[in-house]
Amino acid sequence: MSEHTARPEDLVITAAGEVRIRQELTLVALGRKPADLVLRVGRLLDVHTRRWLTDQDIVIHGRRIAWVGPAGTFSGTVRTRVERPALAAVPGFGEVHKHIESSHLTPEHEAAMVLPRGNTWTCEASHELSNVDGGRNLSFWLTARRHGVPMKIFPLPGSAVPPTAYESGGGYFGYDEQRGFLRDNLMVPGLDEVMDWPSVWNPESPSYERLWGMIEATFEQRGVIEGHGAGLHDSAAINAFAAAGLASDHEVLTVPELFAKLAAGVFVEIRPRSIPDLVRGMLDAGLTDFSQVALTTDDRSASDTLKFGACDYNARLAIEAGMPVETAIQCLTINPARHMRLTPWVGSIAPGRFADIVLLSNVESLHIDEVWADGRCVGRNGTYVGEMPAIAWPDWTRRTVNVGRDLAAADFAIAAEPGRDSMTAAILRPFHWADDFLTESLPVRDGAVQRDAARRITKFAIVDRYSGKGQIGRMFWRGCGPRTPDTAVGCSVAHDQHNIWVVGSSDEAMARVVNQIARQQGGWALVRDDAVLATVRYEIGGLMTARPAEELDAEMQAFYRHASTIDWMHEPTYSANWPEGFPERLCFATLTCAPWRWVLVAPSDRAPQGFVNVQTGQTHPVVW
Amino acid sequence: MSEHTARPEDLVITAAGEVRIRQELTLVALGRKPADLVLRVGRLLDVHTRRWLTDQDIVIHGRRIAWVGPAGTFSGTVRTRVERPALAAVPGFGEVHKHIESSHLTPEHEAAMVLPRGNTWTCEASHELSNVDGGRNLSFWLTARRHGVPMKIFPLPGSAVPPTAYESGGGYFGYDEQRGFLRDNLMVPGLDEVMDWPSVWNPESPSYERLWGMIEATFEQRGVIEGHGAGLHDSAAINAFAAAGLASDHEVLTVPELFAKLAAGVFVEIRPRSIPDLVRGMLDAGLTDFSQVALTTDDRSASDTLKFGACDYNARLAIEAGMPVETAIQCLTINPARHMRLTPWVGSIAPGRFADIVLLSNVESLHIDEVWADGRCVGRNGTYVGEMPAIAWPDWTRRTVNVGRDLAAADFAIAAEPGRDSMTAAILRPFHWADDFLTESLPVRDGAVQRDAARRITKFAIVDRYSGKGQIGRMFWRGCGPRTPDTAVGCSVAHDQHNIWVVGSSDEAMARVVNQIARQQGGWALVRDDAVLATVRYEIGGLMTARPAEELDAEMQAFYRHASTIDWMHEPTYSANWPEGFPERLCFATLTCAPWRWVLVAPSDRAPQGFVNVQTGQTHPVVW
Repeated sequence: MSEHTARPEDLVITAAGEVRIRQELTLVALGRKPADLVLRVGRLLDVHTRRWLTDQDIVIHGRRIAWVGPAGTFSGTVRTRVERPALAAVPGFGEVHKHIESSHLTPEHEAAMVLPRGNTWTCEASHELSNVDGGRNLSFWLTARRHGVPMKIFPLPGSAVPPTAYESGGGYFGYDEQRGFLRDNLMVPGLDEVMDWPSVWNPESPSYERLWGMIEATFEQRGVIEGHGAGLHDSAAINAFAAAGLASDHEVLTVPELFAKLAAGVFVEIRPRSIPDLVRGMLDAGLTDFSQVALTTDDRSASDTLKFGACDYNARLAIEAGMPVETAIQCLTINPARHMRLTPWVGSIAPGRFADIVLLSNVESLHIDEVWADGRCVGRNGTYVGEMPAIAWPDWTRRTVNVGRDLAAADFAIAAEPGRDSMTAAILRPFHWADDFLTESLPVRDGAVQRDAARRITKFAIVDRYSGKGQIGRMFWRGCGPRTPDTAVGCSVAHDQHNIWVVGSSDEAMARVVNQIARQQGGWALVRDDAVLATVRYEIGGLMTARPAEELDAEMQAFYRHASTIDWMHEPTYSANWPEGFPERLCFATLTCAPWRWVLVAPSDRAPQGFVNVQTGQTHPVVW
Repeated sequence: MSEHTARPEDLVITAAGEVRIRQELTLVALGRKPADLVLRVGRLLDVHTRRWLTDQDIVIHGRRIAWVGPAGTFSGTVRTRVERPALAAVPGFGEVHKHIESSHLTPEHEAAMVLPRGNTWTCEASHELSNVDGGRNLSFWLTARRHGVPMKIFPLPGSAVPPTAYESGGGYFGYDEQRGFLRDNLMVPGLDEVMDWPSVWNPESPSYERLWGMIEATFEQRGVIEGHGAGLHDSAAINAFAAAGLASDHEVLTVPELFAKLAAGVFVEIRPRSIPDLVRGMLDAGLTDFSQVALTTDDRSASDTLKFGACDYNARLAIEAGMPVETAIQCLTINPARHMRLTPWVGSIAPGRFADIVLLSNVESLHIDEVWADGRCVGRNGTYVGEMPAIAWPDWTRRTVNVGRDLAAADFAIAAEPGRDSMTAAILRPFHWADDFLTESLPVRDGAVQRDAARRITKFAIVDRYSGKGQIGRMFWRGCGPRTPDTAVGCSVAHDQHNIWVVGSSDEAMARVVNQIARQQGGWALVRDDAVLATVRYEIGGLMTARPAEELDAEMQAFYRHASTIDWMHEPTYSANWPEGFPERLCFATLTCAPWRWVLVAPSDRAPQGFVNVQTGQTHPVVW
């Protein structure tokens, strides 16, 4: 590197930047240029071999590691010395599959929340925001980093943009788009979770060409193709999934499924609720090679992260289930980094990598004292002490809810055929994965089909928030929503298309909820008796807020308190996924990926009433 | 995949081909299309978890695996059944770093030799042929595969083209060339062994821009940057090597060096001569995670492969040193495939991968009964039974030795200054890695400086075979070459620039050797008393022959017999690399990469007499 060339900022990875940075690091490692800092630690975990090294110096230059070795043996000079002889250093933790949108925080606030918990890098599963504004997906995810935030976000463009051919919204990703993302930015490791499985294997599916186009572009650019194998546990499906080239799965639930997927060459990313069973299953089977396993979060609210932790929580669950702590750390560091082909930058404390280091005072309990990222201490005893730039999120992030008009009760009515005093209605339950929908006979009043609280049947709607036409899909659902009269709740987080869902005991309340959400440009609204009882604001993309986690959590807790005053219907579904009380998980009950079948979406050309079987393309009236 | 689209040939990997192949494999796995064949095996090693699975069916379609699972449970139909209940299936072995040029066989004959020994894929370290014809590097390495040969060659363009800025020849690779290779062909995993270490760290080196340009292009295209860390065993150098982004090393010799490189995040590729020591060292240290380790060949002649084996030999050495056989197999399969980012295609017996399978009757001794590649049995009891296309290697591969004229004795004379009866000469020994050259006073006769056999001083020359100008670098060497009068030996294999080296006890014999090599377009020639005593023909690129291994071996053995009639000088060097007898290793004594210092190259602008210190750029007269 010539002396007059400025060192790049080293925030967003570029090939040209790598060259300049590494040219300088090489000289620092050789002792030919002074280093910025040396951090001396009592122990250091070499995750490449799962061995502890004692009394090590970590020489840091800029945001990177230049040299690691026995304390006192570095041949160069350093400007600053930091001594942590009582602490053990392990690499910054990585999320191999996380939707930051599910924290509902913009990346700078996500960083402030998770960095003190050890999470220094995240492979962002970006189909949520992509479905809101696909064209500006990368721009969004790299904004905070470009402002100096020390957490690294590696965005994987979502394969589910749109989630199915029966939905449309703010994004469309096919071959051209994916090729562009991968070609333009080295921060993009690959293609995010291919989840529309019925379209992968079915040449007749309207999404077939789009999906395989994204897969083609990813192969072309040497990217990683992430999978999503929910409900795929028979041998035919697991083999087909792997044969398609899908390289990972984070949906594994059972031990036999785990071993079948691992044997098929699928990298398994275990989520918290599966960690206890799967870790015990692996240990019981005598497994000694965990190199194809990672632990990851997928979705977790800011409130839950504040309460339980970030990826440190995932590791603790694994350790409690019996996994050796060093292996658990590998499952958060080198294993996911290697899988994502990010080892030059993250996953170990080694030269050339970002200086992202977690310092533990108790290894067995994974007690985190300090977290370093980009070569500086950014977390101390659970508190963020790093940079927090003021980011002026632009209008395109703040004006994403466009219903087009104020809605009224009549918008939610389901008209009856003239002369009928009852009609048959198609009924769904949350997480209804059966091949067919349920049916019930419902009464007709004032020309419209009515709910029946006695049978726990309520009304559910999806309101298009993209086209400005205020299109509404509406039908009857069972076992969710308020039993309390004149009450409704809704949210602009409606995986994965993120229209607005609303469920209510009156059409008036439903309209009021949607109007409130539109006014606040996203978030939650709870309405009772003509009044907005509580709201939570997600003003960025209708999914996130540009506020600290604690502030969002306080708002959410207030919302929960109001919600707890409502009488919520409940009916356990066969999936056991459906808890009692405030139905927060309705945000996920609007998913359309495998193993979903019959779903309600905002009306589209292919699903004019919004009620469609996404595996077959069959549509059906909601009443008849 | 629409019915009317023909399935691609599936020889050379392309993104578009992957899509069509995997679309069909997916349907086969689901049982919706009939499969070509099922191979039932008694056991199967899941290298992803290091577990044996019993009684498995491997369903094969085209050249790939579509499905793997318990025998008899595949839901689809298959056209052919093959039963091998007594055999254990492990994945086809891979070479993570091999110069096929060192077998001196064209790829179809290399394949016929190594496939029955289990080696189904090879990352070709391609700087040998690249230095002969860099522009047609990929074209050359993919020719055999395009003709249907079932071995997969993944060429990595050499970083050492030319090896140093003091040499030039048939190739020049910089940013543009590497970018082109990676962009044009998915068979290219990255950049081959960056070996000119002094140029990597030294901004003043004339190769600095070229080398970092190749590194930049490799980062840009998400490729792997292979390293070559010979002689780098101090902490500063190892850290600097890793900081530069060099991701692997195959030059590790000692256990401390091994652990230091592993800790620095360097993937270690262990060669046979280091296997016993390093494997024992890892086991003694209690290592349980070998995921960053591979075993590989680097260079091995056809004769040695016929005698010892291919990568199976490497595994047996590791097993003998105490490595569990399953781990040794991982070091030949999943570990190198993962490092090279080739897991979608090779490294495990799993859906989507090429159907490359080694069938063992004795796992502990690694006894190979059958080898399958591309879904067919290609090796049986050590014999190749696969396709052997007749390849008409084109003229550009056969006309690569261009000395430009017949040489005469006078071309090898080293002129003395008028009036001197002795002169001081710079002296090298083979593998002379000292900082400075040796010096000796040598007699002058007939106006030329003379050899002195009593002091084991002979004459060594490098003859340019590219420019057609017949440029010659000549000087005195010690401890190698014939003591027998009027004798010379030479070869067009002269790592890595591959000019012609010749060593002899008379200038006449040296000229005769070079003229013979030029006439036969490459290979070996041994001359005594005006007669060509023996030759070995490498007519392809001056490095390889398009003949079966056995035929080459017979020619080589005949050459050795003739060579054994010669009295060879010998002087052990400090490197202990220098055996007595016929100095075959002079082919490698012409290397110029680190840790080489003073070397003799063909004269170039930067080294007009050919004698140059490649670490400093200093030149020196050969006599004064």
